[in-house]
Amino acid sequence: MSKLYVIGTGPGGLEYLPPIARKAIEESDQLVAYGLYLDLLGDLITGKTRHDRPLGEEIERARLALQLAAKGENTALISSGDIGIFAMATLVFELLDKEPEAGWEKVDIEVVPGISAMQAAASKIGAPLGHDFCAISLSDLLTPWETIEARLNAAGQGDFVISFYNPVSIKRDWQLAKAKEILLQYRPATTPVIIGRNLTRQDEKITVTTLAELDPTQVDMLTLVMIGNSDSRHITVEDGEAKRDWVYTPRGYSKKITFAKPSLERQPDEAINS
Amino acid sequence: MSKLYVIGTGPGGLEYLPPIARKAIEESDQLVAYGLYLDLLGDLITGKTRHDRPLGEEIERARLALQLAAKGENTALISSGDIGIFAMATLVFELLDKEPEAGWEKVDIEVVPGISAMQAAASKIGAPLGHDFCAISLSDLLTPWETIEARLNAAGQGDFVISFYNPVSIKRDWQLAKAKEILLQYRPATTPVIIGRNLTRQDEKITVTTLAELDPTQVDMLTLVMIGNSDSRHITVEDGEAKRDWVYTPRGYSKKITFAKPSLERQPDEAINS
Repeated sequence: MSKLYVIGTGPGGLEYLPPIARKAIEESDQLVAYGLYLDLLGDLITGKTRHDRPLGEEIERARLALQLAAKGENTALISSGDIGIFAMATLVFELLDKEPEAGWEKVDIEVVPGISAMQAAASKIGAPLGHDFCAISLSDLLTPWETIEARLNAAGQGDFVISFYNPVSIKRDWQLAKAKEILLQYRPATTPVIIGRNLTRQDEKITVTTLAELDPTQVDMLTLVMIGNSDSRHITVEDGEAKRDWVYTPRGYSKKITFAKPSLERQPDEAINS
Repeated sequence: MSKLYVIGTGPGGLEYLPPIARKAIEESDQLVAYGLYLDLLGDLITGKTRHDRPLGEEIERARLALQLAAKGENTALISSGDIGIFAMATLVFELLDKEPEAGWEKVDIEVVPGISAMQAAASKIGAPLGHDFCAISLSDLLTPWETIEARLNAAGQGDFVISFYNPVSIKRDWQLAKAKEILLQYRPATTPVIIGRNLTRQDEKITVTTLAELDPTQVDMLTLVMIGNSDSRHITVEDGEAKRDWVYTPRGYSKKITFAKPSLERQPDEAINS
């Protein structure tokens, strides 16, 4: 039985691609994806048959992948990040559900998760996802804006750390400004905001600003925007001339534990050699 | 300058460990973790010095890792899943923030993200994280229950897919039942619920039930519980004797696009050889 691998390749750098994803790509002869995601894979896909499809043709990509696999071709449907998060995997199962007579029930589907953009952004700037969080797509192409606005209000009320996927595109330029306006009703103007672009790729850029100073014109489709909760902290650690910015969201240890003075520090405990 | 790697090793299976995490472990001489997480790494940690600390001693683990790195030892602080998500990374930065005189500003910290439990669960059962979602820890050891309850209500109002971390422990046995009761006020009794245990490890078990039938006594600390949103679908695909259960959360394509009848299917497009 032929396989359909549904693979998330992570944020971009191949050092984030786990062995299970690499193996799935190696075992596939047919690759279906938006071309840029395949280009990021470099030599790993040499000799394989590419089916590049432009952005906007998501349903065609998912259907093509199922058709190729149903014909007996080992196939990989590929996206960057985690293909299960705001990406192509859900369309594969929606097609299976909605087109039951297509003959796809024989296809052996395996989903391979990847590191999502919010995780790449979080790791580069500290630990902003240390406590309860949510992820919201600001694209109203498929979801009515009223639903998105209800979720923004709910996320504000619940004081969740929020990652915005699809924050802005050429055609959608006002949603992020509206989201900012809604969230300012719930959390301080000084709330840390992380803006990550091209994470783990060449020209990676990550900056920290505040909710009040968030400038939607600085954000595009390659950008992940993350809004801290009301406890999130932006700190700057200085070592002589060197400075490093970090953002973290505490779990609540400071309410339970008195942080130690240096003089009270414990010595490293006895070690066990492995 | 010595490094402190803060590493999430993913759900368990080493096939989910990306090269960046493997390299960080290889470059570390001192490993600080809850012992089970190190055991899962097998031969990868042979010859390195282990500092096992039991669950509950999280702050001690984070402090020890900073101390070892500040002394010039290349050190890895390790947890399973994504160490940035409800895990140790946030404590490292909280210590940096709260204990500024400890001399840790010289430590070169690098956070390495991993595949989180919710992603492993989602990939094994389809694509339940296909649309807006949140993650909530049900542990009230560090977070007041009122805060958690407010988040549960917000998640219900916002119709987010919800992943519960720390759903149940030996000492905390009622929180999941209460969460279920709250969510039943917002979404149908038939809402799909995914219960994943030991994901990607030996004895992995993943089952699908409904919100009404979710039985908290079947859940423990090694379990990830995920609640669909009001659009999430549980489907069973049958191929002769074989059956496969899938859960997916649609993005909303069905509102925009008429799914094709088999006779209208497009043929696979022309291929480009890579």
